[in-house]
Amino acid sequence: MSEVKKVVLAYSGGLDTSVILKWLQDVYQCEVVTFTADIGQGEELEPARAKATAAGIKEIYIDDLREEFARDFIFPMFRANTIYEGEYLLGTSIARPLIAKRLIEIANETGADAISHGATGKGNDQVRFELGAYALRPDINVIAPWREWDLNSRQKLLDYAEKHGISVEMKKGKTSPYSMDANSLHISYEGRILENPWNEPEEDMWRWTVSPENAPDQATYVELTYQNGDIVAIDGEPHTPHQVMEKLNKIAGANGIGRLDIVENRYVGMKSRGCYETPAGTVMLKAHRAIESLTLDREVAHLKDELMPRYASLIYNGYWWSPERKMLQTMIDASQANVNGKVRVKLYKGNVIVVGRMSDNSLFDENIATFEEDGGAYNQKDAEGFIKLNALRMRIAAKKGR
Amino acid sequence: MSEVKKVVLAYSGGLDTSVILKWLQDVYQCEVVTFTADIGQGEELEPARAKATAAGIKEIYIDDLREEFARDFIFPMFRANTIYEGEYLLGTSIARPLIAKRLIEIANETGADAISHGATGKGNDQVRFELGAYALRPDINVIAPWREWDLNSRQKLLDYAEKHGISVEMKKGKTSPYSMDANSLHISYEGRILENPWNEPEEDMWRWTVSPENAPDQATYVELTYQNGDIVAIDGEPHTPHQVMEKLNKIAGANGIGRLDIVENRYVGMKSRGCYETPAGTVMLKAHRAIESLTLDREVAHLKDELMPRYASLIYNGYWWSPERKMLQTMIDASQANVNGKVRVKLYKGNVIVVGRMSDNSLFDENIATFEEDGGAYNQKDAEGFIKLNALRMRIAAKKGR
Amino acid sequence: MSEVKKVVLAYSGGLDTSVILKWLQDVYQCEVVTFTADIGQGEELEPARAKATAAGIKEIYIDDLREEFARDFIFPMFRANTIYEGEYLLGTSIARPLIAKRLIEIANETGADAISHGATGKGNDQVRFELGAYALRPDINVIAPWREWDLNSRQKLLDYAEKHGISVEMKKGKTSPYSMDANSLHISYEGRILENPWNEPEEDMWRWTVSPENAPDQATYVELTYQNGDIVAIDGEPHTPHQVMEKLNKIAGANGIGRLDIVENRYVGMKSRGCYETPAGTVMLKAHRAIESLTLDREVAHLKDELMPRYASLIYNGYWWSPERKMLQTMIDASQANVNGKVRVKLYKGNVIVVGRMSDNSLFDENIATFEEDGGAYNQKDAEGFIKLNALRMRIAAKKGR
Amino acid sequence: MSEVKKVVLAYSGGLDTSVILKWLQDVYQCEVVTFTADIGQGEELEPARAKATAAGIKEIYIDDLREEFARDFIFPMFRANTIYEGEYLLGTSIARPLIAKRLIEIANETGADAISHGATGKGNDQVRFELGAYALRPDINVIAPWREWDLNSRQKLLDYAEKHGISVEMKKGKTSPYSMDANSLHISYEGRILENPWNEPEEDMWRWTVSPENAPDQATYVELTYQNGDIVAIDGEPHTPHQVMEKLNKIAGANGIGRLDIVENRYVGMKSRGCYETPAGTVMLKAHRAIESLTLDREVAHLKDELMPRYASLIYNGYWWSPERKMLQTMIDASQANVNGKVRVKLYKGNVIVVGRMSDNSLFDENIATFEEDGGAYNQKDAEGFIKLNALRMRIAAKKGR
Repeated sequence: MSEVKKVVLAYSGGLDTSVILKWLQDVYQCEVVTFTADIGQGEELEPARAKATAAGIKEIYIDDLREEFARDFIFPMFRANTIYEGEYLLGTSIARPLIAKRLIEIANETGADAISHGATGKGNDQVRFELGAYALRPDINVIAPWREWDLNSRQKLLDYAEKHGISVEMKKGKTSPYSMDANSLHISYEGRILENPWNEPEEDMWRWTVSPENAPDQATYVELTYQNGDIVAIDGEPHTPHQVMEKLNKIAGANGIGRLDIVENRYVGMKSRGCYETPAGTVMLKAHRAIESLTLDREVAHLKDELMPRYASLIYNGYWWSPERKMLQTMIDASQANVNGKVRVKLYKGNVIVVGRMSDNSLFDENIATFEEDGGAYNQKDAEGFIKLNALRMRIAAKKGR
Repeated sequence: MSEVKKVVLAYSGGLDTSVILKWLQDVYQCEVVTFTADIGQGEELEPARAKATAAGIKEIYIDDLREEFARDFIFPMFRANTIYEGEYLLGTSIARPLIAKRLIEIANETGADAISHGATGKGNDQVRFELGAYALRPDINVIAPWREWDLNSRQKLLDYAEKHGISVEMKKGKTSPYSMDANSLHISYEGRILENPWNEPEEDMWRWTVSPENAPDQATYVELTYQNGDIVAIDGEPHTPHQVMEKLNKIAGANGIGRLDIVENRYVGMKSRGCYETPAGTVMLKAHRAIESLTLDREVAHLKDELMPRYASLIYNGYWWSPERKMLQTMIDASQANVNGKVRVKLYKGNVIVVGRMSDNSLFDENIATFEEDGGAYNQKDAEGFIKLNALRMRIAAKKGR
Repeated sequence: MSEVKKVVLAYSGGLDTSVILKWLQDVYQCEVVTFTADIGQGEELEPARAKATAAGIKEIYIDDLREEFARDFIFPMFRANTIYEGEYLLGTSIARPLIAKRLIEIANETGADAISHGATGKGNDQVRFELGAYALRPDINVIAPWREWDLNSRQKLLDYAEKHGISVEMKKGKTSPYSMDANSLHISYEGRILENPWNEPEEDMWRWTVSPENAPDQATYVELTYQNGDIVAIDGEPHTPHQVMEKLNKIAGANGIGRLDIVENRYVGMKSRGCYETPAGTVMLKAHRAIESLTLDREVAHLKDELMPRYASLIYNGYWWSPERKMLQTMIDASQANVNGKVRVKLYKGNVIVVGRMSDNSLFDENIATFEEDGGAYNQKDAEGFIKLNALRMRIAAKKGR
Repeated sequence: MSEVKKVVLAYSGGLDTSVILKWLQDVYQCEVVTFTADIGQGEELEPARAKATAAGIKEIYIDDLREEFARDFIFPMFRANTIYEGEYLLGTSIARPLIAKRLIEIANETGADAISHGATGKGNDQVRFELGAYALRPDINVIAPWREWDLNSRQKLLDYAEKHGISVEMKKGKTSPYSMDANSLHISYEGRILENPWNEPEEDMWRWTVSPENAPDQATYVELTYQNGDIVAIDGEPHTPHQVMEKLNKIAGANGIGRLDIVENRYVGMKSRGCYETPAGTVMLKAHRAIESLTLDREVAHLKDELMPRYASLIYNGYWWSPERKMLQTMIDASQANVNGKVRVKLYKGNVIVVGRMSDNSLFDENIATFEEDGGAYNQKDAEGFIKLNALRMRIAAKKGR
């Protein structure tokens, strides 16, 4: 156990982090700074302030990070068509580096020498918080109570809370048997009946989307305008990045879009089962591919596709602040210079259907044969030579009996 | 123009290949062998025999290749979760190497020195046919009439047909303004209003699927059994590979599953817009990822994901018979040894929803903490060292002001 | 044969391009602009001017491109530690895009509608010239005489020359039975006895290097200073990029460094045997890796290594001006921001031995254990957790009998 | 500290592992089995037996693993042309998985529940030993004394030895100020003056090679015969894998070949400087590339090159026994089916110069133009179409002003 003078705690005001707050004061005998962020999780933050004050905290940070989150984290990630293991849109993963960054900024501002968080020792989030923190401030101390204490069950937590007079009233409208995490990009569910991957999730688990069955019988059409690979307008109206998230979450969620149920591979080495709702993200992935299909060179697109799984792993594993992620981002961002135009999507009972795309930077050419006066860029006879030379190495090999 | 004695023609009995047949006889003055294959396109083949006979053909091959197609082409491809450009399931691409192989086999059997096909000079299929043919028989002559003749419009074809007494009656039930291609994996549409990528396809274009709107209000559940990465049973009943395709196409198509509308990058260098129906394939991709999520090691899965785009390009570009595709296949197949078990999917109005997966080879472990007597494989304290060492290079860099 | 009004010819003044010049005038009846470049091949250019004038050429371009070549082509390529097929330093490949660029610039300046070059139809250079030209000016006409005419032997060329009064006196000091190409980065040899890959090259073939046997018995030490991945000084004295090439070629060549004898795979599909002398480049590759070993993050370095073969193929295949090469370059260049410092190399009889490297941006830390007051960034106990979690997936698999 | 009944110790008989032996007996109060292997390090093993006996050990394993090491580890690795970070031939890395395997085999035979090794907590070897052990037996206990005890200096070790009557006489002919490791593939040096990367190694550090300066003035020619990618004969005489290593080490070492001096990135996150002598390996890498250059398809070779850095990292990081390494090996081995033939190399004062290669499976074809009666597989005119279609996407982009 390191000696620590002041610690910045990622604080939600819920049971876990309230216990952690008290535990830090008791065990580490250090000053605690609380940091509560709005990253679109859809909860009021003022109760957290009240609770922190009640716990004797002097320095309380409550930040609205929603625009920064969408602009500097979600949007750059979607430029790469990022999916982890073919399915997961990285909703939790992409929020963690922002929290890590703010924790360190606040530590620097307040003269704190440590940070603390409520992530467990078996998950990915501890890694994401801490890799980010270390990358941004190498001498920071990290206190991860779940790896240190013996309050390793819900009952022990409750006992500790009661013993120390910590309010345990549940947040309204959010009692759930699942372990959950939410932000502008997604909400996630783990645990309980989900721990058997043969079990189908219960309908009442889901919160941000209606089921496809309950979605409207009428499709909704949406038109998205792209600039440099980012959505800048919806149905012709300018939207900031966070407004894009908010609006698309609402429309897509109402159409039953964005549910996901997978078994994924954690960075710490185990498989886990998770359910996710990512309404806006599900639309954004489809639409971004559509605008790229018109505006991106083939080989650029293929190179992006080949590097994407690695880029996704970097984010999933917590390496947002690593030099290799930044290097890849340089390339990804450079690829988006011409990714401008409009995509029209139809949302219907869980389906995202691209029904149109157009761009002033389109490389699609209906009349490829005629773009030059003297007969066109495309001479069908060229194909023979193209094929013949591409076949040559295989013909030689076959000739040699290979 | 090479001198040719006998040519094997990929012959459908339709207008185009009927004209080609006659043209080969006239222009090349060579004997023609016709080859017509059932690869699941859903057309009767006997009319082709009659027409070929009427055209004076002595050697007529009509083959049912449906099992071979599913077993040796479709299934191996799905082991890799193959998608081209994030969307396309390669329905046309994967059929061409089989046709190429049979053309060469027949050429060898009949003593032919050439093959011929009806693919145009602007598409991918010419490449796929010819790369395959050259790889399998390096000295074969290839006659690609569309690159040679001047019958470069529908009207000229019709005139030629009339002049030479070729029957031009349309095949029943298949008149369509679109350029189409069908086999057990998919049916494709190109041309006409699709040439403007802003246009939404008309509902009556689609043939194998109902629209999500018209699909049943009740979901269908299907259970798929996997062995070595391949589906071997549906709802507990053994199915051959082709039976799998047939059954899943039917069920999925009836649930509005498998429509796709994209702009893709052709190997010959241009973008084109295509619409596809791939009902079975859409289910198979989702379900295969699900069974792999339980049974595949993380790093094996990630390596497969990183190589997949290249594997997909190889197939799209016509390199099925290349040594590099075969080399990759060796690795992909080796990865499937433990991909056994069951996946349960829910099909509903265009949605394929995985609702359960189980396997005797599962690497998912609910009780990871307790698999050893002395306290479990997973000690939360290990995470600290894991994170610290993974962070080390970034901490050193930060320490040095980077 | 396209109709052409004015053509820019890449003109060396040698027999081949002199014949081409005349042939263009005769066959295409078009005006010819000659372009002769100094890219470090070590030949006088004025004779080319005289010959062009004698041939009636009005617009004669003679450019010294040596600095541009080193600065904008060679140096960027070496930032990636580029090697083709494990051996080849791409000496010919990297010069072609510069020639293509100048041909198009001159075509634009002179109002020409075509370019022409003397590369044969079996090699890579035609591809490199023409892909570059098309990428920079899509409507340009390309005349590649070797693919058109029937002057397909040396004797026919000589006959043509004699018949048309073209001077065939050999350039002094350069009579050679080999097909050769030279520029600041290398000189290459092909043909003749080299066509049997079992034959050892004859000693008198080599021109830029002494043999290791004939190199001095005393080693030469050189100190190279790097800034952003480029050499900016030698033994403490500032050098421009071309001066670097010139100086290192001299020193390294004198020490028997830079000979290479390989069988390589051409883009057009065949294998060919080539011998190369790349004295400066051989030193630069070793030294650049050495300065990177100190200054580059591990994962950045590994990512560069994994992408390098593809980057090398792009250059080898003539895709310098492609969007995917430019995208990769963005990333490579970004990685070099901290590649600053000094490398000391020992050159001795064919060996390039790195004997020292230092950098203010070094990430090497002798005292890793002590950089923090409280006991150091590196706690040996962390290794246990690091190993345990990295082993976890394999332990689970083994536990399950895999 | 786990409770342990019997531990298998990787035991060299030197000071470190002798102290560990005693320490295990004292601290863990457990039975110790010693395991000493001959992997070509060039030391007598019988003294280890005597010392182990003297220490009261009942179960003493002394194994000659040299053939297994060369056949099942070194040779497979060289099939991939494996180099870590562009320079390092992985001499230490490749030996560790074999030791791990034997430790577990012996643990299984003797009923031991733990293994122990003398690798420090800051290096790669602990990771390699332990990942291997865990992969092969997931419930094994690992005792890594260097991460546990406080004998963290040479003096403390010596004091402990003296106090416990452990013989500290130095092994003859091997006193060295450097930290060293040797096996059939290489010998390594770390520490002391090498810790400053600007320092040139002292000549008397090197043990297996003469300096290029002191190598013979006369070159040595060697002919290597390959079968399936492995060397099976030298100068026409059959050699087993270990005999190949032994013979080539001798010849190449005598010619000053195989010295390397680098800064490398350790898996545990720090950079370190190491010097290596890998005489045989240096020749083998060059020669294997040469035989592949003749016999491997271009795209197969390129795919191998692109995957090699990752394969090298897997071995460097200790993942030999991982499923992903095995999956890659499947592919690599499959690629070697036709890698047969002969390579002639010239060894001279540090240089390995390939001077000839031949193969019955060669894909090199001097007369590519004439392999068919009707004029050859290669028609120069084909190149135009090949280039035109490869250029098409760039032309379209340029046309659109991109």
